[in-house]
This record gives sequence, structure tokens and C-alpha cells, in this order.
Amino acid sequence: MSVEKTLATAELGFGASMDRLFELLRIPSISTDPAYKAQCQQAADWLVKELSSLGFDVAARPTGGHPMVVAHYKSKMATSKTPHVLFYGHYDVQPVDPVELWHTKPFEPTLKTDERGVKRIYGRGTADDKGQLMTFVEAAHAWIKTTGTLPINATFLIEGEEESGSPSLLPFLRANKKELSCDVAYVCDTNMWDEKTPAITTRLRGLVHEEITITSPSIDLHSGMYGGAAMNPIRALSKLIAALHDKNGRVTIPGFYSGVAELPKPVKKQWASLKFSEKKFLGAVGLKSAAGEKGRSVIELIWSRPTAEVNGIWGGYTGTGGKTVIPSKAHAKLTFRLVGKQNPKSVLAAFQRFAKKQMPKDAVITFSGHGGGSPASEISESNVYIKKSSAALKAEFKKEAVLMGSGGSIPIVRSFKDILGMDSVLVGFGLNDDAIHSPNEKYNVSSFERGIKSWVRIMGALSE
Amino acid sequence: MSVEKTLATAELGFGASMDRLFELLRIPSISTDPAYKAQCQQAADWLVKELSSLGFDVAARPTGGHPMVVAHYKSKMATSKTPHVLFYGHYDVQPVDPVELWHTKPFEPTLKTDERGVKRIYGRGTADDKGQLMTFVEAAHAWIKTTGTLPINATFLIEGEEESGSPSLLPFLRANKKELSCDVAYVCDTNMWDEKTPAITTRLRGLVHEEITITSPSIDLHSGMYGGAAMNPIRALSKLIAALHDKNGRVTIPGFYSGVAELPKPVKKQWASLKFSEKKFLGAVGLKSAAGEKGRSVIELIWSRPTAEVNGIWGGYTGTGGKTVIPSKAHAKLTFRLVGKQNPKSVLAAFQRFAKKQMPKDAVITFSGHGGGSPASEISESNVYIKKSSAALKAEFKKEAVLMGSGGSIPIVRSFKDILGMDSVLVGFGLNDDAIHSPNEKYNVSSFERGIKSWVRIMGALSE
Repeated sequence: MSVEKTLATAELGFGASMDRLFELLRIPSISTDPAYKAQCQQAADWLVKELSSLGFDVAARPTGGHPMVVAHYKSKMATSKTPHVLFYGHYDVQPVDPVELWHTKPFEPTLKTDERGVKRIYGRGTADDKGQLMTFVEAAHAWIKTTGTLPINATFLIEGEEESGSPSLLPFLRANKKELSCDVAYVCDTNMWDEKTPAITTRLRGLVHEEITITSPSIDLHSGMYGGAAMNPIRALSKLIAALHDKNGRVTIPGFYSGVAELPKPVKKQWASLKFSEKKFLGAVGLKSAAGEKGRSVIELIWSRPTAEVNGIWGGYTGTGGKTVIPSKAHAKLTFRLVGKQNPKSVLAAFQRFAKKQMPKDAVITFSGHGGGSPASEISESNVYIKKSSAALKAEFKKEAVLMGSGGSIPIVRSFKDILGMDSVLVGFGLNDDAIHSPNEKYNVSSFERGIKSWVRIMGALSE
Repeated sequence: MSVEKTLATAELGFGASMDRLFELLRIPSISTDPAYKAQCQQAADWLVKELSSLGFDVAARPTGGHPMVVAHYKSKMATSKTPHVLFYGHYDVQPVDPVELWHTKPFEPTLKTDERGVKRIYGRGTADDKGQLMTFVEAAHAWIKTTGTLPINATFLIEGEEESGSPSLLPFLRANKKELSCDVAYVCDTNMWDEKTPAITTRLRGLVHEEITITSPSIDLHSGMYGGAAMNPIRALSKLIAALHDKNGRVTIPGFYSGVAELPKPVKKQWASLKFSEKKFLGAVGLKSAAGEKGRSVIELIWSRPTAEVNGIWGGYTGTGGKTVIPSKAHAKLTFRLVGKQNPKSVLAAFQRFAKKQMPKDAVITFSGHGGGSPASEISESNVYIKKSSAALKAEFKKEAVLMGSGGSIPIVRSFKDILGMDSVLVGFGLNDDAIHSPNEKYNVSSFERGIKSWVRIMGALSE
């Protein structure tokens, strides 16, 4: 039927799908760095042109930051029962540094075949999230080319600030609540269980950002002239960071674990049955043992426990050679991953109180976090869309989809529920070794191809 | 007599002396950064031209690093009793970062008058050490212009690697031992007691550099995907730095204080009589209390106690905005100030043992320090050259010279004694607020002028 024909179209047209993906990957749409503002606009415009050519009613809508691409499609085979489905992705990408560690140019997507014969596309944004969002764009392409229409009513919402904490998203959802409220949302920014096993993510951690500066002397000092007399802000900063965890890996901030519940037994049992290899997961990145709270499995740590992490630290002289200086300032960027009912504002406030108390004499701490943040999210596993999607994924992969958790944050899921009243189904085709946010990010060609075909099937399943 | 006439010449010619100093200051001879190699050569060549014009037998002698300027002058009024005196300075300077904090261009020397009417020369190297070394060059200029000769036999040794730990100095001294062995050395790289009170420094701390890298995961990781499971090298680095000092400010490295003696009572008494204002010293740089070992005065801490200091720290994402990364590596640059009989190699080895023990699982520390380092130095206060120099300084300033300590390192003093068998007399005209190694380094015009005149007097006194 239509699904089979559309799958055949997708297969035949896969070369052209790759060409379109490469075009998008070549645009360095780094949202966190103001220097790339024009390139973010360019990526949005590229999507507008693409979706417009498919017959979507589409525009790059201005925001306080980077534009939001919104595209609507009214199915020509729609009945009163045909659902209206929102598909979400983001066209912005992470910065590329340290750029010297890349083996290929980050914005010149490069196809390589590994020793097992697996084809991979290397480049910033291949997996996070341009490769992923293009799976549903290309599925729509195949449906429209094959049947002249999508089988469902669809809205595509593709934002450009996901890697910057999505500052414009909430106001945009609120301002366009009626236009964007659909029956369900599909978010394509997650991983498969492994190369051969599809997955739907039902549990996401929240996230809060913070940035701190510690000032001790008012100017940089000569470490001979003042060493032994002057407080060094790097010493104060190190004491604070060292104090964040106890010897069992538990976060020491008073009140931090408020709202964190132990896992329900059935969930714990399901996760234990996954035969997850901690040795392989950690070994792939050069590690041997879990560094978080002792006595918990790695899956439990990354899917269901909160963290306090330092993402960057700097202060004093960091160039070639030495400099005998006691710096005036030291800095760090931190993030907290949240679970359960942890409140972002409360966690931030608790950290700030804790940090102030850690300061020695003559060390003054200031905070310049982006504020806000998002709490954790959980989706009911008996949701009808999850059931339909599971079946479609099983048909494509000939394997049951795993219902998993994810350590990363997709704040949009919470916003879709709170503002637009929609549940979200998280289907993605990334893999653990995609090196997202790192040098040499990649996306397997099979992820892209089977991702497109999965969406062809899911769109078909939703129309029935 | 000759001294009085030469002082008059120096006063009349001071404008020209300023012009020559400014020429030298305009050359960005940053020795620690390989990008400035040519500029270091340029500064050496400038000195060769200058000293050659005065009748010195001078050359910029090649080394493994930056050239060594060596200049000899045989006095035309020499007798068998006329001493041969070596004068030491360095033409290299510190890096200028953070360059955005400079109010003037670092290599465009700028004259400013403060609210008290004090004239200052701003620029990198004004005080450390180009302004200082030009005081004895200009004193020689005045003597030769006035009397047709220097009153003493002189060797000028001006190196270009002082800010990089002087890697070529020892081999050079050893290779040219006979040529450079004089009756005494004068080193011009220290401070006055205050604007009106000259000083001779008799006690110097030693210095060892170290650089460390801690590696945890083999690649940068997404803090959502791995947060809670992966060791963060910034956490390991912070634990190490936090562990370096106990709550009383004492360094915790086992064996660190081996060779550190308590101050002799007479020295302690003399220093206590200096009426040193800790409040003013610390207050000038925005601090209120001493951060070193509790129960010791600031003077004691900086002149007679060892330190473990972090001069720079970096790791992870440090650009604009946020990046949710667990970095693969974290780095720090450290220095240890040494006193008494502390052995640089032993201190380094003790630190490395200590640091390795602090590492948690999955954190590997590597060391890339420059090795070597220099122990502390002390000079006898009854030395005849110190007595003659004290008298000459008193004649110029109408105030007794303070015999002080210095927290900074001048490893050359130890090398002159060990290799060339010479004592060193440390006379300099810097001030505590010169901001050496910092943005907005300056040298008072009065330091430069009275420095020149002091050397005119000292050279005269030594010929008698």
C-alpha cells in the first residue's frame, strides 16, 4: 500500500536525501556564539526553502534570538479522525572547539567507512540534530512525492536555540499556543538502544546552567611579591568544586536531593534486564568505573540520578610557557542535571548559598548563570502514540523497541506538556558513539536511512 | 669631583636617557612566547648598538634560546686595585595578557602624571626589567661622556630568558666562566623599600615550575549522556589543588618544609622594626588578610616562607555561552617558592608523589614542568660591596638603605655564587605598585632618574 510504496521511494531517493542533508550540515549554525548569528538565520532559511518546495505553509519566524521555523501541512487524505502531529527538531549546533582535535572539517560533512564496513557521516550537527531532524523532513518528502500528500496533518517546529537553553522557546509557544497545539508531539533528538535496536525515550533529566567568577586580589599579582600573602582565587574555586561531592560521589549541597525519589521497582527490573554493559559503555571512552554515587548502576546514574558537573574552568595564565602570577579572577561553568521533582530555581539557590559559604576570606563569588533551567520529564508508557510508534519501529527494525531513559535534557518535552497540553514521543536514531558535543561528531548512514523509513512507517501508522 | 660632574651630566642628559629607554620599551621582547623570537633578538641588537657606541666591547652571543648580550669595558683610569664589576639585567619581558585590561598599549610607553604629581612610565617591561637595566647603562653613558671612561672595569651581562626560567644561562656561565668571573656582581631587578627609601635585597626565594594535565575520559563527553557515570578531570584537578593547603594555610605535601628554618631572631627583630603596613600592602590590591600560614606576619610570609601556588588553570569549555561537556582533560600551571635549604628537585618529586596519590579512579595525571628550578639565596650583610653601596645610596636619597628580603626569585644570584664564585649585590629602584607581570606595568620617572644617579655614585664609590 501507500506505506510500502513510500518506503520504496525513500530508498530510491536516498542519494538525493544525503545531498540535502550535506547542504544543511555545511551551514555553521552555532547558536551559543553571537559571531554565528547570520549562519543560524541561513540554516533557518534553508529549511524554509526546502519545506516550502514540499507544499508546507512555512516561515522563519523572528524571535529575540535565532528564528523559529514553523511549517504546517494539511493532509489531502485527512478525515475527522486524522491526527494533527507536531514534529520537533533543532537546526542549531554546538561550538566546535577544541577544533584541533577534529580529523575532518566540522562543517564539511565527510563520509567514511569504518573497519566493519559501517558508513558514517562526520561533521558538527550530523547527529545533534540536523541528521535527526532531516529524517522526518525526508520522510515527508517521500510521502508527498509518492502519494501527493502527507497521510497526517503535520506541523514542523524546528528551533535554533536548543544548544543555548532555548531562551525564546517558551515565549514563542505561549504566543502561538493555538497554532502549535496538536494531538501529540514527536521529538527527534534521542538515541537508539544500539545499532540494531530502536528505542523510545520516556524519561529525561532536567538541566540548570550556572557560571561563577571568584575575585580575590583586585589586579593580577606577581607570585613572588605576593605569594604566601595573597589569596589565590584558583585555590578558592578549587576548594568549592572539591567540596561539591563527598567521597561516595554524592552531591553535598544541602537540599540538593529534595524531590529525588528512588526508582519504582518495575522500572528498576526492566532496566536491569537490558544487559547493559557498563564495561563497554565506560570502556569506549577510556574509563573503567562509575564516578557517580556509589552502589548504583551506570544506567541508574545517568537516567535517574541528578548531577553537579563542571563543564569548564579557567583562570590565570594559560598560554605557552610559564607566568608567575596570582590571578585576580578564576571562573567556572557548571551544570546540574535534575530528576524527579527537583526544582531548577531551588537547586540554583541551594548551590549559591553553598558556594558563598565555601568562600575563604578575601574571595568574593559572583554568579552569572542564564537562570531558568528545566525540570525533569517522564512520559506514560501506556500512551497510545508510544504503542503505535513501537509497532512501526518493530516493523522497520524487526526488533522490539526499548523504552529507555536518557541522561540528557530536552526541555521542550516539559514545555509541550505544560503550555500546549501535548504528550511527547521521543524517537531518535542517534548512537552512543556519535560523539555529540565533541570533536568528530558523526551519524551513521544507516541511522539516517532507517530513520527516514521509520518515520515513513510511523506517519502511516498514525493515519490509520 | 668626577662623581659630582657625572651627576650633573646625568641630570642634563635625562631627556635623552628617557628617549633611549622608550626605544627599548617599544620592542615586544616576550621571551616565553616563541612567536616573539625575532623581537627578543631585536632587543639584544639594540643594546649591542647602544653599548658599542659607548666604547664597550660588546656582542649578542647566541644561545640555545634568546641571545645573551655581553659587554666589557676596561677603565682608562684603572689601577691594580680597581675592581672588575659585573652588572646584570634582562631585556626580556612577561606576556601582556589579559591585554584588554591595559589602559595604554603595552609596547607604546606612555608618560602619565598621577594626582600627586608623580610621573610614571606605563608599558610592559618599564619596571621589569628594561627601566631598571637602563639605569646602569645610562650611568655608564654619563660617566663616559663626562670623564671619557668608566671609573671601574665593567662587564654588562644582559640576558633574554629571565622570564622563561633562564634555560641558557647556566650553560653560558659555565662555558664562559673565565670571561665572566668578576670581583662582584650587581643585579638590578629589585625594589626600593618605598618611594623615598632605597634598599638592598639580601634574601631571595627560589622557584620551581610545574605543569600538570589530568586526563579522564579519552574524548570530551556529553554531560547528559555520561554525567553521573564519568569522572570529570576538573573535579580531580580541583581536589588536588584544594588538598595542597590545610585550613591554616600550610602546604600539606609530605616533606615540603624539609630545609625550611625559622628566622634568626636578629632578622626577625629588624623586619619587625620596619613598620610595614600589612593593611596598606594588602589593601592596595583589594585584600584584607594574609592567606598564607596563620600566625606569621606578611613580611615573614613573602620573604621567608615557601609557597605552593597555582598560576593558571584551564579545562573544558571556556568560550561565550554554555556547553554541556565533560572534558577529557584539565590542566594547571603551578609554581613553588622555596626558602632556606629546600631542594628544587626534592620539592618537585614530593609534589608529584603527592599529586599521584590524590588522583581518583579513572584520572591520570602527567607532568610537563620545565624541570630544574632554583633554590633560595642569602647574601651576607657584612659584605664590603653592600657597605659601599649602602653609603652611596644614602648619599643620593639622604636616607639609610633598608636591607630587605624579596619574595621573588633571581636565580642568577645563586648561579653567580656557585659557578663564578661571586657575591651579588641586589640594588633596584622598582616599587611595590609597579604592577610587574600585570596589566598596566609602570616605572616611576623618579625611579629611573635617581636609579641612574645612584649607579653613578656606586660606580664612583667602587673606584675608591
